[in-house]
Amino acid sequence: MFGICLDHVREMRPHIHCITNYVTANDCANILLACGGSPIMADCPLESAEITALCDGLLLNTGTLNPDKLSAMKLSGMTANTLHHPVVLDPVGAGASGFRTDSVRNLLKEIRVDVIRANLSEIKALFCHETSSHGVDAVSSDVITEKNLPEMAEYLKSIAGIAGTVIAVTGQIDIITDGNQAFCIRNGCSVMQSVTGSGCQLSALTAAFLTANPEQILLSAAAAVCAMGICGQTALAHLLPYEGNASFRNRIIDAVYHLDASALDQQADYIIL
Amino acid sequence: MFGICLDHVREMRPHIHCITNYVTANDCANILLACGGSPIMADCPLESAEITALCDGLLLNTGTLNPDKLSAMKLSGMTANTLHHPVVLDPVGAGASGFRTDSVRNLLKEIRVDVIRANLSEIKALFCHETSSHGVDAVSSDVITEKNLPEMAEYLKSIAGIAGTVIAVTGQIDIITDGNQAFCIRNGCSVMQSVTGSGCQLSALTAAFLTANPEQILLSAAAAVCAMGICGQTALAHLLPYEGNASFRNRIIDAVYHLDASALDQQADYIIL
Amino acid sequence: MFGICLDHVREMRPHIHCITNYVTANDCANILLACGGSPIMADCPLESAEITALCDGLLLNTGTLNPDKLSAMKLSGMTANTLHHPVVLDPVGAGASGFRTDSVRNLLKEIRVDVIRANLSEIKALFCHETSSHGVDAVSSDVITEKNLPEMAEYLKSIAGIAGTVIAVTGQIDIITDGNQAFCIRNGCSVMQSVTGSGCQLSALTAAFLTANPEQILLSAAAAVCAMGICGQTALAHLLPYEGNASFRNRIIDAVYHLDASALDQQADYIIL
Repeated sequence: MFGICLDHVREMRPHIHCITNYVTANDCANILLACGGSPIMADCPLESAEITALCDGLLLNTGTLNPDKLSAMKLSGMTANTLHHPVVLDPVGAGASGFRTDSVRNLLKEIRVDVIRANLSEIKALFCHETSSHGVDAVSSDVITEKNLPEMAEYLKSIAGIAGTVIAVTGQIDIITDGNQAFCIRNGCSVMQSVTGSGCQLSALTAAFLTANPEQILLSAAAAVCAMGICGQTALAHLLPYEGNASFRNRIIDAVYHLDASALDQQADYIIL
Repeated sequence: MFGICLDHVREMRPHIHCITNYVTANDCANILLACGGSPIMADCPLESAEITALCDGLLLNTGTLNPDKLSAMKLSGMTANTLHHPVVLDPVGAGASGFRTDSVRNLLKEIRVDVIRANLSEIKALFCHETSSHGVDAVSSDVITEKNLPEMAEYLKSIAGIAGTVIAVTGQIDIITDGNQAFCIRNGCSVMQSVTGSGCQLSALTAAFLTANPEQILLSAAAAVCAMGICGQTALAHLLPYEGNASFRNRIIDAVYHLDASALDQQADYIIL
Repeated sequence: MFGICLDHVREMRPHIHCITNYVTANDCANILLACGGSPIMADCPLESAEITALCDGLLLNTGTLNPDKLSAMKLSGMTANTLHHPVVLDPVGAGASGFRTDSVRNLLKEIRVDVIRANLSEIKALFCHETSSHGVDAVSSDVITEKNLPEMAEYLKSIAGIAGTVIAVTGQIDIITDGNQAFCIRNGCSVMQSVTGSGCQLSALTAAFLTANPEQILLSAAAAVCAMGICGQTALAHLLPYEGNASFRNRIIDAVYHLDASALDQQADYIIL
C-alpha cells in the first residue's frame, strides 16, 4: 500500500521547489535525490513563483525564517495553489517567537496547504494558542506514547478537521490524520532525534511522495513518514559501534536511496485509528 | 599533463573567495580544502570586494541567488578583473527564472569570466535564448552522448567563441572548450547526479585549479573536470553495498583529498577534438 | 576535572541559540546534539531576542556576516546579557575586511562576551590593530609552537586582561586564558585544519559547555577545547586509509557523540601556565 507510493516517486521523478532553512537544506536536497525526486532550492521573491511553476510540488519550511523568505513562500504558495501543485508546510519553530508563529498562521490563511508536517509543540502553538514550544523540539509534555495514543489520535483528528488539512505529527509514535482516519506509525528509532533536521528531511520526503501521488494525500504522507522511520531503523542497523549522529545522518539518506516498495510494505509498522 | 595542474594547487594553496549558495557551500568548502585550496565564503556587498582582493581566485555560483548576493558578485568580479584573479562562474539555474537568467547575463556583460562551468541546459539558456532549463538539472534532450559528441563539441566550440571564455559543460560526457580545442572527458559515473551540488563542487575545484595555473586556463579547467570524474569513480569503488548518495558525497571529497598527480594522469580518459 | 563539565552538559541538555554562518550551520547543530545540547538557529532581528530568551546560552559566529545578522546578534547579545546567559563569540574573518573587523569590535563594545573562541590572526586583528588575517585561517606567522608557548601564553593573558573575557585561541597548541591562568592544550591533530568549520564547531561546543557550567567559564571553555581535540584524535584513529576530510568531519562529530567524562579526563593533555 505504501510501497506503490514510493514506486510512483521513482517513476515520476518529481521536481520539488524547496523554500527552506540554510541549516538543513543540503540534507533535504540529498534525501529528495535519494528517494527519486529532484530538488530546486530558491527563496528569492523575485523568482520564487516562477520556480514553483516550473516544478511539480512545493515545500515550505520556516526554519531560519526572514521577511524575504516569507514573501517568497506566499508568492510560491499562491502559485502552487493556482496550479494545483501539492504543498507541504513544515512550521519549524512555530511557538518559539511571535514572528515565527504569526508568519505561519498568516501563511495558513493565505495558502491552501495539503500536509502540515510538524512536532506536537508546533501544532499546539499554531492551533491551540499554547506557547509550549521550546525552540524547535517538542517539549517533553508533548509526547505521543502508547498510553495516550488513542486520546492523541482523536485530538489530532479534531485539529486536522479544524485546519482542513492532513496533519503529520512525528515523535516516538507518529500520527498522520486527515480528520477521519489516523495512521499511527511505530517505525523509527530514538537516535533520529540526535540528527539535526531529521524532521526537515521528512518534510521534503513527504513533498515528493505527495507530488507523485496527488490523489492520495493521507496515504502518501503516511507512506513518507513510514519510509523515514524504516530508513532510521536500517541506518541504525548499519551503524558501527564508534559511529554517532553524523554518520547516522548519512546512513538515513543512504537507506532512502536503497529503499524499495517491498521493503517499505514489509517493514511498515502501523495501525489505523 | 593534468597531474601537474593538481601539483600546482597543492603547492600554491590558493585562497578562493566563494560567493555561492547556502545549499552546497559546506561541500564546496570541504572539496577546496581536499584539493589543497583554502575557501573563504563571504557574500555581503559591504565586504565582498575587499575579501576578493585578499584572495587569489574567485568563484561565482548563482544558486539561491538574491539581489544582495548579486551585488556582491558584481563588486567582487570587477575587483578580480582589476587584479587579474581567475574567475569561475557557475550559472546555477540559468533559464529557470527570468531573474536568474537576466542576472547571469548581466554578470557576463560586466565581468570577464575565465571559465563557465555549467550543464548544457544552462549554457543554452544563456547563449541560445532557449528556456529549456527545468530547474537546476539538464533536461533530457540536453545530453551529450557518444553519438552526438562531435556535433556537440563543435556546437560548444562556437558558443565558447562567441562568449570569449572557456566553457566546461558536464554531463555523461564532459566537454571543456576554449573555442579552438575541446577536451571530451569520459571519467565520472552516473551516481554523481544523485549528489546535490556535485556540479557546484566541481566549479569550486575548477576555481582552485585555475588559480594555481593562471597561464593554462583550458588545460587546468579540463584537469579539474577530469579530477572530479576520477574521484567519482574512486568513490564508487569504495562504496559499501548499503551506502547511497549521502556516503557517496563524502567519498568523492575523500577521494579528492587523496588524489595525486600520477593517479590523475593515469586514470584520465579523454580525447581532444 | 574536564569530565564533570561534559557530564553537566548531558544532564542539563542546554538549548543554545546560534546566530551563525550558513557554511557550517549544519555541522554546528549536529555537534551540539552530539554533546547533549540542543541547537536553535535563528538570525532574523524580528525574533532573535525572543529566541535568545527561550534558550539557555548564545553563540555568535560572524561567518557570512551581513547587516541583518549583525542586528540580530546585537539584540540577542543584549538579551543574553540581561538574562545572564553565557555568550560565546567566534569572530570568524575578523581582520579580513573592514566590515567584519568593525562589526566584531562594535559587538564587543555593546555586548559582554564570556568567551572569544578564535585563531591567533583574528585575535590580533581585534586587539592589536594588526591586519595580518588572510581570510579565515591563521597566517603562518601566527602559530603557537612549543618554542613560543610561554611567550604566547603571556601575550594572550595580557589580551584577555584587556578584553576582560576568556580567550580561547586554537591552533597546533591551544591556549585558553582568563588573564590569570592559561590552559595550554596539546590534544587535536593537523587533519582538523582540513575540515571546514572545525573552529565553528568548537565554538558551538564551547557554548554548550559554558551554559551547563556557568560558574566555571575558564574551566569549561578549556574542557570544550580539550574535548574537541580528543575527538579529533579519536576520529583520526577510526579513519580508513581511503577516507579523507569529509569522512573525518563526520567522525569528529561521531566521537563527540560517544565521548564520556572518563575518556575526556584520561586523554586530556595540557599544562597550566
